[in-house]
Amino acid sequence: MCRWAAYIGAPIFLEDIISRPAHSLIVQARDASECKTAINADGFGVAWYAHRPEPGLYRDVLPAWSDHNLRALAEQVKSSLFLAHVRASTGTATSRNNCHPFTHGRWSFMHNGQIGGFERFRKRADMLIPDALYDQRRGATDSEALFLLAVAEGLEDDPKGALERAAGQLHDLSVGYGTTPHLRLTCALSDGDRLYALRYASDDFAPSLYHRWSASRNGRAVVSEPLETGEADWVPVAPGTFMTFEEDQARSEPFVPVTSSAGMDCTGTAPLKVMVR
Amino acid sequence: MCRWAAYIGAPIFLEDIISRPAHSLIVQARDASECKTAINADGFGVAWYAHRPEPGLYRDVLPAWSDHNLRALAEQVKSSLFLAHVRASTGTATSRNNCHPFTHGRWSFMHNGQIGGFERFRKRADMLIPDALYDQRRGATDSEALFLLAVAEGLEDDPKGALERAAGQLHDLSVGYGTTPHLRLTCALSDGDRLYALRYASDDFAPSLYHRWSASRNGRAVVSEPLETGEADWVPVAPGTFMTFEEDQARSEPFVPVTSSAGMDCTGTAPLKVMVR
Amino acid sequence: MCRWAAYIGAPIFLEDIISRPAHSLIVQARDASECKTAINADGFGVAWYAHRPEPGLYRDVLPAWSDHNLRALAEQVKSSLFLAHVRASTGTATSRNNCHPFTHGRWSFMHNGQIGGFERFRKRADMLIPDALYDQRRGATDSEALFLLAVAEGLEDDPKGALERAAGQLHDLSVGYGTTPHLRLTCALSDGDRLYALRYASDDFAPSLYHRWSASRNGRAVVSEPLETGEADWVPVAPGTFMTFEEDQARSEPFVPVTSSAGMDCTGTAPLKVMVR
Amino acid sequence: MCRWAAYIGAPIFLEDIISRPAHSLIVQARDASECKTAINADGFGVAWYAHRPEPGLYRDVLPAWSDHNLRALAEQVKSSLFLAHVRASTGTATSRNNCHPFTHGRWSFMHNGQIGGFERFRKRADMLIPDALYDQRRGATDSEALFLLAVAEGLEDDPKGALERAAGQLHDLSVGYGTTPHLRLTCALSDGDRLYALRYASDDFAPSLYHRWSASRNGRAVVSEPLETGEADWVPVAPGTFMTFEEDQARSEPFVPVTSSAGMDCTGTAPLKVMVR
Repeated sequence: MCRWAAYIGAPIFLEDIISRPAHSLIVQARDASECKTAINADGFGVAWYAHRPEPGLYRDVLPAWSDHNLRALAEQVKSSLFLAHVRASTGTATSRNNCHPFTHGRWSFMHNGQIGGFERFRKRADMLIPDALYDQRRGATDSEALFLLAVAEGLEDDPKGALERAAGQLHDLSVGYGTTPHLRLTCALSDGDRLYALRYASDDFAPSLYHRWSASRNGRAVVSEPLETGEADWVPVAPGTFMTFEEDQARSEPFVPVTSSAGMDCTGTAPLKVMVR
Repeated sequence: MCRWAAYIGAPIFLEDIISRPAHSLIVQARDASECKTAINADGFGVAWYAHRPEPGLYRDVLPAWSDHNLRALAEQVKSSLFLAHVRASTGTATSRNNCHPFTHGRWSFMHNGQIGGFERFRKRADMLIPDALYDQRRGATDSEALFLLAVAEGLEDDPKGALERAAGQLHDLSVGYGTTPHLRLTCALSDGDRLYALRYASDDFAPSLYHRWSASRNGRAVVSEPLETGEADWVPVAPGTFMTFEEDQARSEPFVPVTSSAGMDCTGTAPLKVMVR
Repeated sequence: MCRWAAYIGAPIFLEDIISRPAHSLIVQARDASECKTAINADGFGVAWYAHRPEPGLYRDVLPAWSDHNLRALAEQVKSSLFLAHVRASTGTATSRNNCHPFTHGRWSFMHNGQIGGFERFRKRADMLIPDALYDQRRGATDSEALFLLAVAEGLEDDPKGALERAAGQLHDLSVGYGTTPHLRLTCALSDGDRLYALRYASDDFAPSLYHRWSASRNGRAVVSEPLETGEADWVPVAPGTFMTFEEDQARSEPFVPVTSSAGMDCTGTAPLKVMVR
Repeated sequence: MCRWAAYIGAPIFLEDIISRPAHSLIVQARDASECKTAINADGFGVAWYAHRPEPGLYRDVLPAWSDHNLRALAEQVKSSLFLAHVRASTGTATSRNNCHPFTHGRWSFMHNGQIGGFERFRKRADMLIPDALYDQRRGATDSEALFLLAVAEGLEDDPKGALERAAGQLHDLSVGYGTTPHLRLTCALSDGDRLYALRYASDDFAPSLYHRWSASRNGRAVVSEPLETGEADWVPVAPGTFMTFEEDQARSEPFVPVTSSAGMDCTGTAPLKVMVR
């Protein structure tokens, strides 16, 4: 499990999300509240949009709280759209290539959750990544695989559909070769214009996801956990939801991974319930 | 605050202290029990004696739990005397030079505790380090300063006295220029033949210190926290004590920092009580 | 291109190969002589056999010359069989997972060379790695792929044959999807008992490989470049050779990658010449 | 010895200096031309001015050419004033705290050169740093000491004078306790408004320094080595010169370290010649 926070709106310093709030992402690296692992110290990363269509990317393997470079970057870089992540490894090595966010062209992506038994079927997941994208498979995480599968499934034109298909593929592999829980996901992603987020689980325990519009700041934070404890207006996102954030708008749609019926036969009714939601 | 563990006895793999016990040092890096900071993830280090009079030294800035090199070293290296440490920075940067243990010739040293207000009088502490030793002042921690001052005060011939004088110098600086609590120390040190440890505080809150002889292993662990929860025979060390461990023997002496009377005037009776113990 | 050095014989300190000789491996990291890239500063690693059947493994991303941990390890660790490597990346990221040696059970492996156009067919190479071994595919290098393919091809029982088959598979992929030169290899590998090395190229430019028995030391060094300039008795290994070193013996056999005839059709006579050697 | 490059003018991406030119700073990290050490791989750093009076600071210990974070930063960050540095250690550890630039409030500073025998009188240099600045003495380099001494000597109001006094202090220490050559300096520094640079040596071998105004870019590069080989209009700076760059203006003044006559007595006439220049 990990923690993440994203932002879209009028340009702010990264530190306004990453380090200044009372329950900032860096605080969550030490002391997450709504997470199985309170410590998220196996690296961190931030992708930000500024002067180019492609995002900048800064990732390192230290705990986020002790990296002076991150502090300086957060103080200096202004952005109207960025994604930031602190990692708690579920087994894969602590290396920059395994840190989120991941990027591809204009897209950035980060993830918190698990794909049950991924280590048992990682090769099969890798095989699903098209040849043309395979040079971008740099690490070994389930998250990077999910992202590249979504790119292959048409992320550019249909982010929700692409992720439903990609998540479905991994769900099916987990049903066929892995373990329960098959899928627990919260993701944030962006093409530099819109910010997308989704929350889903094949069981009843989807990782937490909130967002909040700040009129004073003229922007929206989308987060694993609220950044301040006193603020009442953090909106929880329901499981099985795909969110699109653009300017001050937040649009909600159902998120239903496209799983094979063979997969459904194996898993019985639990994921099926989610699918007909 | 930090956590540490040391060993003297028949040769064992480092992992028998560092990673295999139920409450091993690596577990304590994530989840220390008797410590203000449960997380000790700002680097780690190990000094071990094997084929040479001088110890080997491996230190890095990652959390101890995620370093594959440490795991391999702990599995492969056998030693009859070693010191291992996981760090929680109280402000100084996470860098290898600030990680414990520190070494000088045949000596190794590690520390858990605080010297009140050290950042205010670091220059004065540095100035007490003799010219001839100053090239070994590589980082900025109070712990490295304490060690080098002890070397200067005759660690080679009189470890207890040298540390009483060095700790007294820093105590006086804390009284003159720093804050309370002036001194809280647990240290372990070795010349490759004996293992020494001390516990002291200028107030009532000395960091914890235990040791335990294992007849089956024919060796002794000296630790911040017991390495197993079910073992009844961990011996707590009383505050104000300097321990000398050699072969299967454990010898206890009072540890009384040599402070100046000027220092005592400033602080009143609290440290004085300790001194006349 | 990279540089490496290995040793088998009476136990010596790692430093006797890594850092003490006039043209030691660390010197070669800065200033290699027989190599296209004089600088080999994209990480390093050492695998050594000591108290267990499995080797220890220490790898990091700094230049070898500036890593104090490596220096301490080299001074302290004694071994009768070890492999050491300094890396010059040909494109893949500088990360610990991409540093040599690689290990699997009792085996260790390191490589210097190139597999032409590997980045174009990395997915196909990965797909050849059996499911059961795929969890050990941690990085993205051609070298790790070659090693895991050799493990799959029966390294345990037939090191030469396994490497001939594995190298042949990659040669065929390079012929089908990559570029010339298809294969240039020098590898060292060990199971903890014997040290093996091979030199091969599908063209006329096999990377250099030497070995030398030291009677005074009672051991043998096997290296990319001689460790001293004044020593006349470094034995160059001919291209297309597989060496087995055991105790003071050195045995030489032809090394001929098992390529498919389709592969040979594509490449014409150049690799064929090597094969019938 | 190290290499550095700085820029003042219309905002450009950092990469326009750091990585895109044919003889960019990253190329110089591997293959410097006018430098005793062609390899400058012991860390790097960049300080840039953007949205705040204080500079951002990114430093790391990898060779500059292999750091993906630096590449991303260089592609994304625009600045009208920045300093960038690649380091070749002359002995001090490779650590972030020893990497240039150094910063203090609005000021940033970087250096290439040597202060003869510094390791012998580092303590005396540290003692000259005022108490109030000592908490910013984080590493052990001569360069950081020079910078903090200049801050103490009034860098804010009189950059040239402050550096003449600070360099003079270190010169005197080198004369009294160190070795020849006593001082060889090229420095760049900035308060966010102006860019300053200086070139000086107490012997005939001052490190190289050039600058060049680009009309098309509307900005000026100030560098250890020209960034392109074909450009004729790189202006070499004479030894003993302090340059002030503001907007498109370049102003030149003599730079004469303020040394004590005692110092001059010891060294004889060589530094004196420089002083009356």
